[in-house]
Amino acid sequence: MNILLTIAYDGTNYCGWQNQLNGVTVQQRLEEALAELYGRTVSVVGASRTDAGVHALGQRAMFNIDEKDIQIPINKLPYAVNNNLPEDISVNYAEIAIDNFHPIFSAKAKTYEYKLYISPFINPFLKNYYCHIKHSLDLTAMKKAATYIIGEHNFAAFCASGSSTKTTVRTVFSLDIEDNNFHGVRVIAFRVRGNGFLYNMVRIIAGTLIYVGEGKINADKIPEIILSKEREKAGKTAPPQGLTLIKAEY
Amino acid sequence: MNILLTIAYDGTNYCGWQNQLNGVTVQQRLEEALAELYGRTVSVVGASRTDAGVHALGQRAMFNIDEKDIQIPINKLPYAVNNNLPEDISVNYAEIAIDNFHPIFSAKAKTYEYKLYISPFINPFLKNYYCHIKHSLDLTAMKKAATYIIGEHNFAAFCASGSSTKTTVRTVFSLDIEDNNFHGVRVIAFRVRGNGFLYNMVRIIAGTLIYVGEGKINADKIPEIILSKEREKAGKTAPPQGLTLIKAEY
Repeated sequence: MNILLTIAYDGTNYCGWQNQLNGVTVQQRLEEALAELYGRTVSVVGASRTDAGVHALGQRAMFNIDEKDIQIPINKLPYAVNNNLPEDISVNYAEIAIDNFHPIFSAKAKTYEYKLYISPFINPFLKNYYCHIKHSLDLTAMKKAATYIIGEHNFAAFCASGSSTKTTVRTVFSLDIEDNNFHGVRVIAFRVRGNGFLYNMVRIIAGTLIYVGEGKINADKIPEIILSKEREKAGKTAPPQGLTLIKAEY
Repeated sequence: MNILLTIAYDGTNYCGWQNQLNGVTVQQRLEEALAELYGRTVSVVGASRTDAGVHALGQRAMFNIDEKDIQIPINKLPYAVNNNLPEDISVNYAEIAIDNFHPIFSAKAKTYEYKLYISPFINPFLKNYYCHIKHSLDLTAMKKAATYIIGEHNFAAFCASGSSTKTTVRTVFSLDIEDNNFHGVRVIAFRVRGNGFLYNMVRIIAGTLIYVGEGKINADKIPEIILSKEREKAGKTAPPQGLTLIKAEY
């Protein structure tokens, strides 16, 4: 039986989602919690391999249990797993998934949010969840640039090197920019929904939009940058702490 | 010359504002940063002695420098002090205060915010800044209870024991309750402004409002609780992490 969990985590103190040799990951903590619960090794597959420092509100993770495993009622499962998890990881929901379900390949859409704040000083409350920008940004230009990113494109220019994906064509369904205020500090959030994202794609989009806001890239150059398929033409990869996986849709 | 700083801090990792023997405090870190800057011991006086785990957006702290100290332009001072501070403490503003100014006694009003969230599970993003309530609250009753707290009262029933204050009469100018949503999680904030607050007074008000919301105290009993002057009649002291000092007004 496939069990699909919905998980929130503060990624600040983790080396990302995916298990690795050096450092503690969210996947590892979750697998440990499940192993403690079921009394056997449990492997989970996540919907998104979030990087070190990246957060999630609606990560999904699937694992398989069979008849001889202890059966915990599905609605009680989040309570049981959370008992074995640290406070910065929380299972919010558990459901049974169909047999051929896959957290990555079955996803029809994913939504990420990238947040930044504008202040001359580091903000103690925003530092782990927002990218820190010291000077004002041209939001009008950024909103214009965002319109060029929406749609089906070859996003090779927005993909970190070392990625082994078959195709770099992805569809961005929407890219909204929200202008807000946290106790007098201007905060800007990019919310992007797409059918899939290349490695570091959201952070490179964010970095490119920041470059546009800073006047380093002209908004109308975005189509040219996309067509070039050259990573160096786009902006820098924005820092991980600004990124949150909001949800995966199936 | 008196210098008055406006400071924000995440109190999670501190034993409160005020210096003490066991554990690091915000005051200590600030005094260390100033000592490094001026090359001599600097003592600061804060507007509010926030407890361990309590946060501040607009704490004020004053210190004195004289002619022979290194003179740093007042508008550059926040940058210089922040260079010597950890990232969870940030000076946002510096100004010169008049000679007989005192951060506590000159204050005409202070504003605090107490925040809670309602969820069966711990929320990784709210846990350090909100009180965690597992079951729904009767907000109508809480709003009614709040109206009884507004005004000039003897708040002895809302004062932690061990306090050595001369009078327990204080005026609460306003007490507003905000109902909000953090990605599907209900969050409630009490914002209270008064001419001064007794030791733990805001946390006891919050704890009492929570009791009202839970049906443990009837909203209409609040005037009686105030008149009793008995600490045991009011609700529990709500946990520190939900509390933030918003500002002190002079």
